[in-house]
Amino acid sequence: MTNLPAEQTQVLLAAKPEGQLQESHFEVRHAPLPEVEEGYVLVRSLLLSQDAANRAWMQGATYKSAVEVGDVMHGYAIGEVVEARGGGFEPGDIVAGELGWQEYASMPATHLARCPDHRPLSQLMSILGIAGKTAYHGLLNVPGIEEGETLLVSAAGGSVGSIVGQIGKIKGAHVVGIAGGPEKCAWITDELGFDSCIDYKNTDVSKTIRQHCPKGVDVYFDNVGGPILQAALFAMNLKGRISCCGAVSQYDSASPQSPAGIPGLIVVKRLRMEGFIVMDFVDQDAQAEADLKQWAADGQIKVAEDIIDGIENAPKGLIGLLAGDNRGKRMIRVAAE
Amino acid sequence: MTNLPAEQTQVLLAAKPEGQLQESHFEVRHAPLPEVEEGYVLVRSLLLSQDAANRAWMQGATYKSAVEVGDVMHGYAIGEVVEARGGGFEPGDIVAGELGWQEYASMPATHLARCPDHRPLSQLMSILGIAGKTAYHGLLNVPGIEEGETLLVSAAGGSVGSIVGQIGKIKGAHVVGIAGGPEKCAWITDELGFDSCIDYKNTDVSKTIRQHCPKGVDVYFDNVGGPILQAALFAMNLKGRISCCGAVSQYDSASPQSPAGIPGLIVVKRLRMEGFIVMDFVDQDAQAEADLKQWAADGQIKVAEDIIDGIENAPKGLIGLLAGDNRGKRMIRVAAE
Repeated sequence: MTNLPAEQTQVLLAAKPEGQLQESHFEVRHAPLPEVEEGYVLVRSLLLSQDAANRAWMQGATYKSAVEVGDVMHGYAIGEVVEARGGGFEPGDIVAGELGWQEYASMPATHLARCPDHRPLSQLMSILGIAGKTAYHGLLNVPGIEEGETLLVSAAGGSVGSIVGQIGKIKGAHVVGIAGGPEKCAWITDELGFDSCIDYKNTDVSKTIRQHCPKGVDVYFDNVGGPILQAALFAMNLKGRISCCGAVSQYDSASPQSPAGIPGLIVVKRLRMEGFIVMDFVDQDAQAEADLKQWAADGQIKVAEDIIDGIENAPKGLIGLLAGDNRGKRMIRVAAE
Repeated sequence: MTNLPAEQTQVLLAAKPEGQLQESHFEVRHAPLPEVEEGYVLVRSLLLSQDAANRAWMQGATYKSAVEVGDVMHGYAIGEVVEARGGGFEPGDIVAGELGWQEYASMPATHLARCPDHRPLSQLMSILGIAGKTAYHGLLNVPGIEEGETLLVSAAGGSVGSIVGQIGKIKGAHVVGIAGGPEKCAWITDELGFDSCIDYKNTDVSKTIRQHCPKGVDVYFDNVGGPILQAALFAMNLKGRISCCGAVSQYDSASPQSPAGIPGLIVVKRLRMEGFIVMDFVDQDAQAEADLKQWAADGQIKVAEDIIDGIENAPKGLIGLLAGDNRGKRMIRVAAE
């Protein structure tokens, strides 16, 4: 068991952002460690996940309740039990849950999940975590992908997109990414093995999409919404499928904009657009984990992780994530194991 | 065989509409009867279908090529063979095909389908025709509907919507229509048996939808797009399904408008939006026809038909259809049988 400090660092939401998220929307403060009531478990955070959805939670209730001004920022983290008053946990156990943006959290034991015995722990957040499972279920159990089909993936350098494209390659698809900047695009093709990558920061996606997808788009995995979704809609083949995973282009905007052609293009092309969240497929997680573990182990998937040290850097990390700075799964190393 | 006249009446597209369709966009003219070449069949039109899709064809290619200025308006019709030079047809045979807005058409025999032996012929356009099959497949084979679910149907007094809602009732759903005007809404509940109907011309659908659908919307059958699709999106339950059948509110507009919340609402509520056209389900037509025939015969479905006499009234008929004047399947009686 770790020696406990008197104080910890927390990051609070200081103001509701309207438009672009900035560091001034957060407050870093020091606070006493929480009391550990009966039935609760004190957890020392090790790795904090950073996700575009963190931004969406500031806008209002989504699939979870909204984060309000004065709240410790919500966030999913992996940590180590330091004191347990219920749930059969013991100091040293590795657990995961909504620990928030703080070094220590006192959580109801029922709100914690025991982590599988796997190292590095970071892979429980990337390939074997929500990112990997979101990619797996969101591609294979929503639109599906067949050999020879064209798969288009936005936010292709992100935690989910980087895995979606690699699964697409394993399944024999022609895989085209969309990402920002020539270096990132080169990394996506050269390192991750996508067939090509569209640089949305330096080209007009609606004009270049046809060069990259000469046979049109059969499956579009949408992480971004907005103008890129619109470009994809116009390039979709008849009976194309769109997996709606997220809308990162919209979360950080005061005036979200729906793509043109809804529902006209859906009718005329007989498209299917379908949203999902990873929890919808919990009964198929075992298969997902087994496949992802195997693919990572034998090198068919390169695991891309982007780890930043220190809880005080979480605001900067999220702001950068929303701007597309990250390569693969971004997380904050709150403490060494 | 009918005595053939020297001339016939045709309706041409005289100008491409931008915005609302008007009679001035059409030209009614008299023309000699066409020659009947080898392999062709001369057909005397009896019943001409009027469909919102007729308007969409003026905007450009959809699932069929666009209708251009100077063309006889495209349209699906049932007629009687008067002269046959191929295809094994004989005078008196009842056939269907893209005969257009005219009294007589000379068609390649391969472009004609023999109609089943059924009277009244109008039912081959309503309950047993494209309208009925569109309703059947578009409800049962796209989103599906379960007992106790809430089904919302726009253009509920139209050719397709009137049948969708009645199929929903047969399947045990709580069925809510959307239509224009108190008389039409009363007809939809009292005559067609919907549980309730929202009058979009006199109430704000986004505000009243919750009163009519207190448990939210599980399945929305969308014939209209636009603000009503938007209201439905906000009222959808988690994992709700939207069957995208048409977008009549958009066809007659110079500036179509996508609903807000795409893809945000699709992600957060895990919705499925899916487009279809009736031809996608041709392999399941036999089942559809058998069920629809049975339901009509035993009175579980009331067949609503709205028949206007005279090909010269086709422009007025279509304009009225786009404004929602019709009750049930609108068609033009081009000639008596």
